[in-house]
Amino acid sequence: MKSIIEYPIDHPFPIQNFPYGSFYTSGEASNQRCGVAIGDYILDLQALSLTKFFPEVIARDIFSGSTLNRFMSLDKATWLSFRTHLQQLLSCGSPIDVSTTITSSNICPGVNVEHLTGRELFVDRLSKDTVMCLPCTIGDYTDFYSSLEHAFNCGVLIRGKEKALQPNWKHLPVAYHGRASSIVPSGTPIHRPMGQILEKPGDTQPIVAPCKRLDFELEVGFFYGGKPTKLGERLSPAQAADKVFGAVLLNDWSARDIQTWEYVPLGPFLSKNFASTISPWIVPIHALEELTCPGYQHDPPLLPYLEDTNNTNFDIPLTIAIRPAEANQSVEGSFDVISHSNLRHTYYTIRQMLAHHSTTGCPLSPGDLLGTGTLSAPGTHGYGSLLEKSHMGRQPFKLATKSGKEEVERTFLQDGDTVRMSAKAQGKSGEYWIGFGECLGTILPSIPL
Amino acid sequence: MKSIIEYPIDHPFPIQNFPYGSFYTSGEASNQRCGVAIGDYILDLQALSLTKFFPEVIARDIFSGSTLNRFMSLDKATWLSFRTHLQQLLSCGSPIDVSTTITSSNICPGVNVEHLTGRELFVDRLSKDTVMCLPCTIGDYTDFYSSLEHAFNCGVLIRGKEKALQPNWKHLPVAYHGRASSIVPSGTPIHRPMGQILEKPGDTQPIVAPCKRLDFELEVGFFYGGKPTKLGERLSPAQAADKVFGAVLLNDWSARDIQTWEYVPLGPFLSKNFASTISPWIVPIHALEELTCPGYQHDPPLLPYLEDTNNTNFDIPLTIAIRPAEANQSVEGSFDVISHSNLRHTYYTIRQMLAHHSTTGCPLSPGDLLGTGTLSAPGTHGYGSLLEKSHMGRQPFKLATKSGKEEVERTFLQDGDTVRMSAKAQGKSGEYWIGFGECLGTILPSIPL
Repeated sequence: MKSIIEYPIDHPFPIQNFPYGSFYTSGEASNQRCGVAIGDYILDLQALSLTKFFPEVIARDIFSGSTLNRFMSLDKATWLSFRTHLQQLLSCGSPIDVSTTITSSNICPGVNVEHLTGRELFVDRLSKDTVMCLPCTIGDYTDFYSSLEHAFNCGVLIRGKEKALQPNWKHLPVAYHGRASSIVPSGTPIHRPMGQILEKPGDTQPIVAPCKRLDFELEVGFFYGGKPTKLGERLSPAQAADKVFGAVLLNDWSARDIQTWEYVPLGPFLSKNFASTISPWIVPIHALEELTCPGYQHDPPLLPYLEDTNNTNFDIPLTIAIRPAEANQSVEGSFDVISHSNLRHTYYTIRQMLAHHSTTGCPLSPGDLLGTGTLSAPGTHGYGSLLEKSHMGRQPFKLATKSGKEEVERTFLQDGDTVRMSAKAQGKSGEYWIGFGECLGTILPSIPL
Repeated sequence: MKSIIEYPIDHPFPIQNFPYGSFYTSGEASNQRCGVAIGDYILDLQALSLTKFFPEVIARDIFSGSTLNRFMSLDKATWLSFRTHLQQLLSCGSPIDVSTTITSSNICPGVNVEHLTGRELFVDRLSKDTVMCLPCTIGDYTDFYSSLEHAFNCGVLIRGKEKALQPNWKHLPVAYHGRASSIVPSGTPIHRPMGQILEKPGDTQPIVAPCKRLDFELEVGFFYGGKPTKLGERLSPAQAADKVFGAVLLNDWSARDIQTWEYVPLGPFLSKNFASTISPWIVPIHALEELTCPGYQHDPPLLPYLEDTNNTNFDIPLTIAIRPAEANQSVEGSFDVISHSNLRHTYYTIRQMLAHHSTTGCPLSPGDLLGTGTLSAPGTHGYGSLLEKSHMGRQPFKLATKSGKEEVERTFLQDGDTVRMSAKAQGKSGEYWIGFGECLGTILPSIPL
């Protein structure tokens, strides 16, 4: 596939990726609409639906709203068909491009628009004028705990090596319900949360103070797509394969000291619900399926309802970089990469997570988000959180501020630090890359009580 | 206040209550709309908005949708003003009633309706034709653990009397995020969940099986109302006082054996997300405020951000009754009351729960639901769950099947059992009662895997 849009071979958004998102331009937040990214452009799907070039495989008004939820509620075959038609439309020989104008003969009857310029159809993605929003309304957000290395690392830090994994961990994908209302798109600054903490070990009287152990968690979030399931309805892993719309990067910011004090016995609450950041472009399942790799062997064997005959994961390298507050923020390269991990490190497949989620008949809806949990790779270079990297704050590490010159020390995040997560995998043919765009957030000081 | 609608003095929905809900009639689910209950009628607010009798204090199209969310997003003073106008409209001397017809001179200009009959405006609430729905779209659902007696009872059962309360419990309202998608209105039958459980104590290999320890939790759910808060915005308890729209009964069904196996370390997941039942009528805050009583004295004292100068709770008696599967379901009185509790048993006020929830700046939106957690009263007659009543299944109890004749034994719920929660408080004048309507659910057998 050669696209009418030009981009270098290692561009994150080639025609083989084609991620979906929601955006607005010119400060007009009320005109939020959906698009698909190609190179440095966004194909405006609402604008396209006014023209005769819109693929007729779905209703023309699917993109009339501001988010992707209606499109996500269609089925996997339809997503593929629409995607294939769009890819053909944007391949060499296309009747449209950035510099043409679509005249009235190609505008749909009844549409009150005389013509559309190529620049109205193809929005400059990198313009400061273009603002990315949450791609969909997120009904419910579930966060799993599915990386073996992460669970093991945390267990060692808390309980020691012998009892690192809890007895249930290898039998089911542990998860909890997260907060949907505080999920924000990449770039949203995050105020350091205030909360109840114990000032020193052994204290019994908490104080309320700015979190002193502010952390991130490197995750991938999968969006449920397809028809909503009904109360009582169950999905097998095979059925769940058709219910994954796509994936984003997810930073599940975590306040470790607030968490330690509050989480017994019902799990994390305020320590997680102050913000979770996602990359704004949903990489479609059909792009992800080009990047599969073998999944984990399960020992002990899983119960039959969790058996996934397609035991594959996604081989997608992930990196975490921090730009410390001290760095000259205008200098390129002031981000220091501190971790290399991979989406392949989920012990359970996303299909197993969905199947487990529905065991009791809990309804799932298009736009529901399922986080993998922190993705840590084996070895010290692959920690997905600072809790692991700093050994619960006991082992500071160094960050370069600028081209490896001055270094600063960290255990947890300081005000002014920026965390950037990114993902990029080479397509099997070697001729293109699939990127996720970045998932970025800067820590602002606490808002005083 | 004397209403144009007649009802007995102990009716749960007098004009002083005026709870809001959402319903449809004649099998037309697509015509779901909002109403306010008075006696055995529902005043159809969408129909009323077509007439000149609609109070002009809010926009006429607030009730054009199927749920209450838009109305809930207004402010407390406006809710009161609208309520007061409606109460006046339905007081003696009103120009409308069940038997009159509203003619064109009282229909708003531009409305394409010739006339409205009283029976179109006042819907028969008790008709089989009238179906109650969820009153609003529930964005996020948070469940607290705020009853001292319940936390103490559970602690004694798990850890013994000396360490019954966890160290954090008297310092903050413990809570976790629940699942919004499985909240259902009263009457929805609940399939016994399947899930991973350990068959006997000491087992290390789980099985997947129908839950053997199916329980309920008696709770009250408060709905957030008012403008949504933004990421980073905090509410003090005083500010939170304006953000409570009203309350419903909430049965947070719980699968205790699934919970025991899955909940370490991130809290309950599948054990709670298969269903939560609410009573469909939201009792407005202005009706609740007639029913206040002193709140708990906090020892140790709470941190300043949790101090509520208005330290009052709501004195609302709650009962739980079970109709066992063995009962002749056609016989009146086959419900056996097993518990008498009260909403006053939250150690933290709802304003403190909201303030705590927002400490870290987690956004709250109209329609968000906050459960109190299981409400147990002091003494053995006031258990809010079967976990407590049966001492974790060790102490069976008896249920009458019919007028106290044959008795059956229970520890947890059996298929075919129906649980009914209800609430009714006498207004301070002694001249009326505030009821919640019932929160009811019947257990159906598991759906086989």
